[in-house]
Amino acid sequence: MFKVRVFVSYKESVLNPQAEVIEGAIHRLGYQTISNVKMGKYFDFDVEAISEEEAVEVASKVSDQLLANINMESYHIELMEAK
Amino acid sequence: MFKVRVFVSYKESVLNPQAEVIEGAIHRLGYQTISNVKMGKYFDFDVEAISEEEAVEVASKVSDQLLANINMESYHIELMEAK
Repeated sequence: MFKVRVFVSYKESVLNPQAEVIEGAIHRLGYQTISNVKMGKYFDFDVEAISEEEAVEVASKVSDQLLANINMESYHIELMEAK
Repeated sequence: MFKVRVFVSYKESVLNPQAEVIEGAIHRLGYQTISNVKMGKYFDFDVEAISEEEAVEVASKVSDQLLANINMESYHIELMEAK
């Protein structure tokens, strides 16, 4: 069993107004030392697989087909730890 | 300059129907080997600070005051790498 984490975020070319709004709110709270705010979603799940390669392969297929809107978003897969 | 990542997710006690809907959709796509789907948000930002401790302290204050709804959500802070 492998524990996988998929990070999904807007592509660099896509403007993320929500992140800008949050950065503005952070500054209005007085935290001027914070900058370059980005945000995204992440999905954790377990994958029954015989190898790390197979677990990553299944995760990328699911990301392409469901978890990420590949027109606007990119994703990054991390293996957390085998259980 | 420190690069911080804040993970925000529903507390264990809070039902996350969206994660259940996604798990169902994953299974309908034929990926029965996937289970235990959880999801959340993450925020990346840079913090101008003199130490890792100070960067984490600022990040947790901002998480408490803005990034997480501490009634329903919990957060976890990771230092990515100093730049």
